[in-house]
Amino acid sequence: MQNGNHASLVKTLAKSIKDRENGNHSAETKEKPESHPINGGDDSKSYAQNSSYQKGVIEAAKREIVQAIKEKLDIEKVWPRRFVIADFGCSTGPNTFLAMQNIVEAVELKNKSLQQSPTIDFHVFFNDLVDNDFNTLFKSLPSHPRYFVAAVPGSFYERLFPKASLDLANSSYALHWLSKVPKEVGDQNSVAWNKSKTYCSGSKKEVTEAYFAQFRKDLNRFLDARAEELVGGGLLVIQLPGVPRGALPFNTGAGFIQELLGPCLFEMADLGFISHEKVHSFNSPMYFPSIEELDLAIKGNGHFTAERIKILNHPMQHLPFDAKMTCLQTRSIFEGFIKDHFEIDIVDQLFDLFAKKLEESCSIFYQEIRKDVDLFVLLKRVC
Amino acid sequence: MQNGNHASLVKTLAKSIKDRENGNHSAETKEKPESHPINGGDDSKSYAQNSSYQKGVIEAAKREIVQAIKEKLDIEKVWPRRFVIADFGCSTGPNTFLAMQNIVEAVELKNKSLQQSPTIDFHVFFNDLVDNDFNTLFKSLPSHPRYFVAAVPGSFYERLFPKASLDLANSSYALHWLSKVPKEVGDQNSVAWNKSKTYCSGSKKEVTEAYFAQFRKDLNRFLDARAEELVGGGLLVIQLPGVPRGALPFNTGAGFIQELLGPCLFEMADLGFISHEKVHSFNSPMYFPSIEELDLAIKGNGHFTAERIKILNHPMQHLPFDAKMTCLQTRSIFEGFIKDHFEIDIVDQLFDLFAKKLEESCSIFYQEIRKDVDLFVLLKRVC
Repeated sequence: MQNGNHASLVKTLAKSIKDRENGNHSAETKEKPESHPINGGDDSKSYAQNSSYQKGVIEAAKREIVQAIKEKLDIEKVWPRRFVIADFGCSTGPNTFLAMQNIVEAVELKNKSLQQSPTIDFHVFFNDLVDNDFNTLFKSLPSHPRYFVAAVPGSFYERLFPKASLDLANSSYALHWLSKVPKEVGDQNSVAWNKSKTYCSGSKKEVTEAYFAQFRKDLNRFLDARAEELVGGGLLVIQLPGVPRGALPFNTGAGFIQELLGPCLFEMADLGFISHEKVHSFNSPMYFPSIEELDLAIKGNGHFTAERIKILNHPMQHLPFDAKMTCLQTRSIFEGFIKDHFEIDIVDQLFDLFAKKLEESCSIFYQEIRKDVDLFVLLKRVC
Repeated sequence: MQNGNHASLVKTLAKSIKDRENGNHSAETKEKPESHPINGGDDSKSYAQNSSYQKGVIEAAKREIVQAIKEKLDIEKVWPRRFVIADFGCSTGPNTFLAMQNIVEAVELKNKSLQQSPTIDFHVFFNDLVDNDFNTLFKSLPSHPRYFVAAVPGSFYERLFPKASLDLANSSYALHWLSKVPKEVGDQNSVAWNKSKTYCSGSKKEVTEAYFAQFRKDLNRFLDARAEELVGGGLLVIQLPGVPRGALPFNTGAGFIQELLGPCLFEMADLGFISHEKVHSFNSPMYFPSIEELDLAIKGNGHFTAERIKILNHPMQHLPFDAKMTCLQTRSIFEGFIKDHFEIDIVDQLFDLFAKKLEESCSIFYQEIRKDVDLFVLLKRVC
């Protein structure tokens, strides 16, 4: 999972405030991407142990992938060489292994369905930021994968592979992490200042526009890089959380979690654990797009044809809401992020508070989670 | 760095002893390779901070590599695609980056010397065992390498890449680590029992023969795997410690270090820190071959032509002996290995003792290190 640069935001905001104090309102900060990986390792608070929702997305996408590869992959072009797959934003597993296995099986299925199909060597590359816990990823590899394994450290908003070296690229639940929070949402002098919220809730038009502009810019960079790396006709498969047409992030499960996290942070400030200023400068670097917004961004890029953009039917949509699991999942994603921003370890207290609020909100959450939307996107590199 | 499986040896020996006790002398143990990586991280006891000798080997090999690539690489075959390099047994850096940079520069030099040479994308793969500290490797990557980076976890005695996917393979100071210690050197009933030593000192013919047989078997597996992975005409560059013609490992610096380590272990047993039995079952999984032995093993494999096998002129050969540095280097390599074998942490006491013995032996060591031999091997994949 790639989460961009919350600390960068903090620094940007800090400098912005300092610049204003010094009368230098127009000063631009250097926006070098930073990273705050989700929880590594394999313990009870790790992402590896708390990513069953994301697993569900991969399960839901399997049928789509099988169909996509059957209908859209020009496999004859691959013969007689190897088939190269990369997962962008792989995190520490085990979901990435499931996603890769699904793709390998789908390609093998298509290959075997054709006459005189040769055996294909699969080469699978796992990508995430340099700070990702690759040691854990490697130690949890399947014992006998049907592919050769490699890992690639670095931001997927940049080039990571030689030209035309990939046959298929995948990204599951990663592209909603922005490379950075848009500067103006933390700027008290901007019309897009996100005053009372700590994420893009959708309640203020200018904030949403600033977030979407950043999302579109980032997606464009991602697509530009993958367009160079994929062979002509190569497939790009994306799954990410989105919003239904006309809905606000607040109405989705993923948004609601962040809606709850904000008041917890303000309460922590009221209790004196952290400063109110620090809470005001906290903004989540996530954006949940609609199908229409995605379509607009992809068409604007021009390197890919959108073969399919649809809403997945998540297997957990109809399960009762599990507050404990949701709390652990949220913590595994936000812990490093929060520690970096507040520069003191407040996560135990914060998530005790969050757990209580989550329990109290069970009934609301259970209704709202039905509006969760996981998007499936299939793109084909223009030859 | 790949060190095979000392714990596996221990288990083999333990089971062998138990089998003998049970009257089951012919029982074979399952010889699954295990790994005991050199010290990870980047602190004062890490391999990363204590591998200046190995760095010297890479520096000494640079001139050879430039010449080898100039004369032996069929670079026109690469056009217009990418050039793929893998370093087998990369450890945690920084030496591997230097080795890769030297190769990339040499290939670029050759490419530019030819008319109408296109720009080549370099793809560099860093390989080591799954237990290697890849997180440290990634965090210490050069900031703007002239190549795309990937890592491959796994034993280089097995296949790690798709068929014909590499243009050049390198292995610096890794192939002297055996996949396992030959069983018979720990077997009291064998003529090859290595009774009073803890490494292959060369003082007993049967022990040396058993070690060489294992080295040859391992090298053969390495060459078989690389032969599949390299393109026809692809180059394989190897550097490893060896022995001069007619000399014994005891006469080399690397051998002498192990010669000193043995008595330290026996002294630790006399002091009651560890059992004598455990020391008797301790054998180093390293072998330092001669040029003649290497030549024999390579010819026996048959997949490669030996373009060059020669002794390198190490830049540190004529420096005064540095006992402190040698102690830290030895510890960074053997620490994990020793902890695994003795199952208790005795390394601080052991290396205090070792440091004293090393200081006392300075004059001998300084004479003997002149006989250190670093071998450079250039092989070409038969088309």
